[in-house]
Amino acid sequence: MSTKKFLLEEKDIPTAWYNIVADMKNKPLPPLNPQTKQPLTPEDLYPLFAKKLAQQELNETDRWIEIPDEVRELYKHWRPTPLVRAYGLEKALDTPAHIYFKNESVSPVGSHKLNSALAQAYYCKEEGVKNITTETGAGQWGAALSYAAKAFGLELAVYMVKISYEQKPYRRSIMQTFGAQVIASPSMSTRAGRQILTDHPGYQGSLGTAISEAVELAMQTPNCKYTLGSVLNHVMLHQTVIGLEAEKQMEMAGEYPDVVIACFGGGSNFSGISFPFLRHKLTEGKDIRIVAAEPASCPKLTRGQFQYDFGDEAGYTPLLPMFTLGHSFSPAHIHAGGLRYHGAGSIVSRLKKDNLMEAVDIKQLDSFDAAALFARTEGIIPAPESSHAIAAAIQEAAKAKEEGKRRTILFNLSGHGLIDMTAYDQYFAGDLTNHELSDEELSKTLSGLEQII
Amino acid sequence: MSTKKFLLEEKDIPTAWYNIVADMKNKPLPPLNPQTKQPLTPEDLYPLFAKKLAQQELNETDRWIEIPDEVRELYKHWRPTPLVRAYGLEKALDTPAHIYFKNESVSPVGSHKLNSALAQAYYCKEEGVKNITTETGAGQWGAALSYAAKAFGLELAVYMVKISYEQKPYRRSIMQTFGAQVIASPSMSTRAGRQILTDHPGYQGSLGTAISEAVELAMQTPNCKYTLGSVLNHVMLHQTVIGLEAEKQMEMAGEYPDVVIACFGGGSNFSGISFPFLRHKLTEGKDIRIVAAEPASCPKLTRGQFQYDFGDEAGYTPLLPMFTLGHSFSPAHIHAGGLRYHGAGSIVSRLKKDNLMEAVDIKQLDSFDAAALFARTEGIIPAPESSHAIAAAIQEAAKAKEEGKRRTILFNLSGHGLIDMTAYDQYFAGDLTNHELSDEELSKTLSGLEQII
Repeated sequence: MSTKKFLLEEKDIPTAWYNIVADMKNKPLPPLNPQTKQPLTPEDLYPLFAKKLAQQELNETDRWIEIPDEVRELYKHWRPTPLVRAYGLEKALDTPAHIYFKNESVSPVGSHKLNSALAQAYYCKEEGVKNITTETGAGQWGAALSYAAKAFGLELAVYMVKISYEQKPYRRSIMQTFGAQVIASPSMSTRAGRQILTDHPGYQGSLGTAISEAVELAMQTPNCKYTLGSVLNHVMLHQTVIGLEAEKQMEMAGEYPDVVIACFGGGSNFSGISFPFLRHKLTEGKDIRIVAAEPASCPKLTRGQFQYDFGDEAGYTPLLPMFTLGHSFSPAHIHAGGLRYHGAGSIVSRLKKDNLMEAVDIKQLDSFDAAALFARTEGIIPAPESSHAIAAAIQEAAKAKEEGKRRTILFNLSGHGLIDMTAYDQYFAGDLTNHELSDEELSKTLSGLEQII
Repeated sequence: MSTKKFLLEEKDIPTAWYNIVADMKNKPLPPLNPQTKQPLTPEDLYPLFAKKLAQQELNETDRWIEIPDEVRELYKHWRPTPLVRAYGLEKALDTPAHIYFKNESVSPVGSHKLNSALAQAYYCKEEGVKNITTETGAGQWGAALSYAAKAFGLELAVYMVKISYEQKPYRRSIMQTFGAQVIASPSMSTRAGRQILTDHPGYQGSLGTAISEAVELAMQTPNCKYTLGSVLNHVMLHQTVIGLEAEKQMEMAGEYPDVVIACFGGGSNFSGISFPFLRHKLTEGKDIRIVAAEPASCPKLTRGQFQYDFGDEAGYTPLLPMFTLGHSFSPAHIHAGGLRYHGAGSIVSRLKKDNLMEAVDIKQLDSFDAAALFARTEGIIPAPESSHAIAAAIQEAAKAKEEGKRRTILFNLSGHGLIDMTAYDQYFAGDLTNHELSDEELSKTLSGLEQII
C-alpha cells in the first residue's frame, strides 16, 4: 500500500469555477419549453431555481465564475482534496501505466456532491429562500445537501429512490441526523408519485420519478426552491473545483494525464474532474482523452439517443438536449444507485456528440472486482459508483501493458463506500449479477421519444 | 458551521513516539505472572507479542522511540490529521470557551486505531510472523488492523464482540473487504468461548471474552502473534502521534489547552491525545487538566478499584495493575462498544492513582445529545465512543459559561460514526436508554477481585 499524495494548501482552493460552455465552439442546445418548444430564458427558470443558479445555467459567455466567499470558506472543511499516485494498484496490475486518483471521498459526507450542494444552498439562502427540495439516488447527493442545508439554515425535503432507501438505510439516517426530512420515492405525497404507484404498483423508484416528486413539492410550497445534484449545467460548473485542483496537483507530480476517467450518472463528478483538462483540448488542441464510465445496465452515452427529453419521469422539467434512454426508462437495481439515471446533461451530450469525449460501459461484477482490488491495494473502500471509474482505469492500464506503453491515467474517486457495505457483502457472497440492457429493451425504451432534433 | 482548521505538512508527522513512562516519577506497577506473582520480563511476553512490541511494553527509560520509516510512510496516507476550532459548537453553546478538536476520524478506516495497527503489523511482519489474531469491540480496531494486516501481507483472525457483530454489520464487512476473517465472540472455536457459552447460554460477548479467544488462538497457531488495540503500554505509545501533532497545531492557533479530553475504553485515544501534553505537567509542572470520559455503564476509572486483574475474561493474560471493575464484569449493551471494557491500562491507572488526571462518567443519552449537536454544528457525525468526549467538552464549556471565564478546551474526535447510524436511528426514535451501574452490581462485580496490592 505504498502511496504518494500530492497536497495543496487552503489558499490553493480555486477562487472561481470554470464554465466550459464559454470555450465550446458548438454550444449545448438550449432547454426548451415543452409546450411551445421555445428556448428558455433564465427568467423562465426563476420559479424553480434560485436566480443566480438559473443565470449560471444559461451562461454561455463567462469563462470564470467567482466562488462566493461563504462557499469557499465551507470548502475549507475538507478541500483541497488529495491527489494520490496509486502505486499499490499499479503494482497489482503489473502495468507500465502511472495511475493517479483525485480523492473526493474525504469530504465530511464522503463524496464530491458537497461541492455543488454548498453552492446551491448558499444561493438559495442569499435570495431569502427558506425551504428546498431535492431527490437522491444512492443518497450521496441527499447527504451532501442535508449538510449544506444545515450549514445555511434551510429546511430540506429529500425524495430518496425507494430501492436505495431500503438498500442504504445509513444514508437515510445521515440525512436525518443533519436534520433533513427523507421520503421514499415514489410516495403518496405527490401527484406524480401517486400516478406512478397506480400505473406500476410496487415500483421501486428511479431518479426520474424522485425528481418529479421534488419538483412538484417545490412548485407547491411557498418560498421553496428545487435543487438538483447532477445533470444541469450549473452543477457541472460547481464541480470543476475538482479538476482545477487536480491540474495543479498533476503539475506537482510532473505529469500530464493521457486519459481522464470518471464514473457517469448525470455527469457531475465526470464534469468536475474532466472539464478543466478538456479546456486545453478545446482552446489549445491538447491531446488528451476523456472517458465516462457508465453502468452496462444504464448505457445512455454508449447506446442512448441524442434527443430532447424530460429530466424527470412525469415530464415536469423543461425539455433538455440529452443522450437519453427515454425518461420513462426504468434501470435495473444495481448497487451504484447514483448511476441509475436515464440521461446525460446538455453539455456532456454536446461534447459526446462532437466526439470530444468517449464513454465505456462497465458491468456490475467488473465494477466490484475493481472495487475489491482497489480496497486491498490502496486501503480505501470505494463507493459502487466510483468503482466504475476504477474498472475503466484498470482497463486502460491493461491496454498500456498490452501495448507495452507508459500511459498516465487520472480518475476521480468520487466517494467512499463505507455506507455501501451490504453491496460488498452480496458481492463476496456471490449474490450479485450483471444486468445488461437487451437490444429489444433498448429499442422499446427509445421508441417513446418524441423526435424534436 | 464556520470553522478553522490548523493543518500540518507531511514532514511534520512525528518521527518518534513519546514514551511517557520515562517521565513518570511513580512508574506503573509491573505486570505479574498469575502463578508466581513475579514481575514479567520482555522475554516472558515473546510467545504472545512481537519482540519489539514486548520491549516497548516494558520500556521505562527511553523517552522517544523512533517510528520505523515503513510505518511513517503509511501514516502519510492520512496524517497529519487536522486540528479544528469548533466555532459552530461554541456558538450553539453560547460559551466563552474556545473549543478545539483533533480530527482522527479522517483516517481511511475512520478512527485513530490505525496509528497502532500499522505499528503492530509492521513489527510482526519484521520478525517473520505470518498470522495475527485480535479482538474488536465496536469494530474500529478490527477494521484498522485488517487494513494494516493487508498492508503488510499478514493473515488476520478477528474475534468481534457478538453484540457489535450484530449491531454493526458494516464494520464486519469492512474487515472482510480488507481480507480478514471475522468470528463472532463468544464462539465455539476456542475453549474460552465454549466455556462461557456453557456457563452463560446466549451471552452477547464482551471485550474481555473476545481477548481470551484471540489469545488462545494465537497461542495454538504456529507463527502467530496476538495484537491488542488498547490497554497495553505499547499501544498508548503508538497513539502519541495524535498529541504530538496537536501540540504543534495548538501552537499554530496561538493557544494552550486548559483541559484535554478524550473518551475512555482501554485508554488508547485518551493516551494518544493527552500524554504529550501531560509531559509538560510531569516535567515542568505545567498547569493543565486531563480528563477521561467513560460511559456511566462501565465506570472503571470513576468507580472501579485499583488492583491487579486479568486483561481478559478467561484469565489467560498476565495480571495487570488496573483501575478495574473485575475481569468478569459484563457491561450493558451500550452503542459505544469500544468503551465496554472492564479495566484501564497500567499507565493510565498509575496516573489516575497519583491524581495526575481526572475522569468523568457520561450517560448514553447525554453522549447522543452531544453527538447530534456536534453533527449539526460541525458537520461531522461522531462515533458513539467519541461522543463521550464531546459530552465532556460540552460540560467544560458550560462550566466556563457559568463562571464567565474563558477556557481553552481540546478534545479528541477519535472516529466518525458513519457506520453507527443504527444507533442514531434508535436515538432519534427515542429507543435508547441510560444504563447506570447500581452500587449493588458494583460491589458484586468487585467482590471477585483477588487483593494483591
